[in-house]
Amino acid sequence: MIDYFAEERSEDVVNARMGPDVSPRLAEVMTSLVKHLHAFAKDVELTQDEWGLAIEFLTRTGQMCDGNRQEFILLSDVLGLSMLVDAINHRRPSGATENTVLGPFHVAGAPQYAMGTNISLDGKGETCLFVGQVRTIEGLPIAGARIDVWCDNADGYYDVQQPDTQPQWNNRGVFVTEADGTYSFRGIRPVSYPIPDDGPVGKMLAALGRHPNRPAHMHFLVSSPGYQTIVTHTFVEGDQWLSSDAVFGVKASLVASMERGDDTAWRSSFDFIMTPSGV
Amino acid sequence: MIDYFAEERSEDVVNARMGPDVSPRLAEVMTSLVKHLHAFAKDVELTQDEWGLAIEFLTRTGQMCDGNRQEFILLSDVLGLSMLVDAINHRRPSGATENTVLGPFHVAGAPQYAMGTNISLDGKGETCLFVGQVRTIEGLPIAGARIDVWCDNADGYYDVQQPDTQPQWNNRGVFVTEADGTYSFRGIRPVSYPIPDDGPVGKMLAALGRHPNRPAHMHFLVSSPGYQTIVTHTFVEGDQWLSSDAVFGVKASLVASMERGDDTAWRSSFDFIMTPSGV
Repeated sequence: MIDYFAEERSEDVVNARMGPDVSPRLAEVMTSLVKHLHAFAKDVELTQDEWGLAIEFLTRTGQMCDGNRQEFILLSDVLGLSMLVDAINHRRPSGATENTVLGPFHVAGAPQYAMGTNISLDGKGETCLFVGQVRTIEGLPIAGARIDVWCDNADGYYDVQQPDTQPQWNNRGVFVTEADGTYSFRGIRPVSYPIPDDGPVGKMLAALGRHPNRPAHMHFLVSSPGYQTIVTHTFVEGDQWLSSDAVFGVKASLVASMERGDDTAWRSSFDFIMTPSGV
Repeated sequence: MIDYFAEERSEDVVNARMGPDVSPRLAEVMTSLVKHLHAFAKDVELTQDEWGLAIEFLTRTGQMCDGNRQEFILLSDVLGLSMLVDAINHRRPSGATENTVLGPFHVAGAPQYAMGTNISLDGKGETCLFVGQVRTIEGLPIAGARIDVWCDNADGYYDVQQPDTQPQWNNRGVFVTEADGTYSFRGIRPVSYPIPDDGPVGKMLAALGRHPNRPAHMHFLVSSPGYQTIVTHTFVEGDQWLSSDAVFGVKASLVASMERGDDTAWRSSFDFIMTPSGV
């Protein structure tokens, strides 16, 4: 008896077609994907017009991608999938600093600066001092930890989005913690911005009654040999988009204080708590 | 209490973000999609490297698409989704002719011919007479039904895949049934062929240990006012790929006889049983 296609056991017919020498992990992932995609189509009784629209949407999403724009990552972000995959892969003990999405704007190779240096190179925005300590859960300072930071400028754009008008490495820098684990650098008080919403993902957000805004944040990538790398942001307390980040990046533990310092500049304090690798 | 992202209720956090004025059907479809995609990522504990590969795959799939190639439809086909959506939307009473996938090679506007005309214009292949009747489940002939047929040539390519070497409308034609519901036309005995496998979908099939071949078939699009349009193929009995069609298009009821006729040409007989619209 040949196992022809049938609606009621469609996912099994498809999965039974896999060959005998497939990588076990690929077989596991694809079997689950087929099962869930078929269950989705059945649950909502997807129409052919709807499926056609989905095909068109996915096609336009792929064709929107180029060297400077990754619309599928944006799609993953707004569907909460980027945060979910990050969460699944970075479960940490209570008290450790939580991850959030890397985002598409990290650039390797930013200049390393002395503590206290101002990374804002375009003269825009309100100055802010970022300070804190990198330490273990037990409270031991981690010296020599590498802190890679980046954020948008006061107009809401990263340098790589405006290569013609922003200085290279504007609002980016690398710092290395002192013997007592502390860091400090100057930048601007981060501002909120919309994710690029002139493509298919932006149209989808609009259809879903969602806004494209992200609350103001500073990106941190904190690494030290022997410890799990922390990919995260600190969010500016009080930001109007904290509760509705378009990419679901906010966690309560990542909201950092933002206060007026002695010199009337802003001051934001945040400590990073690292866990050993392999834990 | 703000509903920040959390792994264990990630799908609810995402779906709760939808606005109040969203189309109810869009809300239903997206809620289910988010639920199933998050369940998939959780079930297999998707890694960030795997998710990155998926993003790359989807991007390449979109960028493979142009006016002549729709790689996302191909992806939908090989995952059984095209057949599933077709099945969900064309449940018919027992005895009625079943649908199968339309495929990407239908072209509207083929010439209408007199019964018996040969649609093969390139002189290749073994001649085959296709005959049958269009009727109701009750056995009443349907006169004036429009039968739009198309297939690949003897080399396994549709005319639109080889516009420089095949005559336009090669192996395509439209016929209109006689008063007794019958039809007849000549063409070639269909040959099996691989779906285009030089793109991301072909690479995926290879990784899954699957071949790209489709069993030999003739496409039929049968329509008549007051009846549900039938989009289907007839498959050549005995074809080596019948049990493993790369796009899962085969149904047992669609396998047609293929016999030597009196004139030593092949002869394939298939009757189409239509159901009223709206049933």
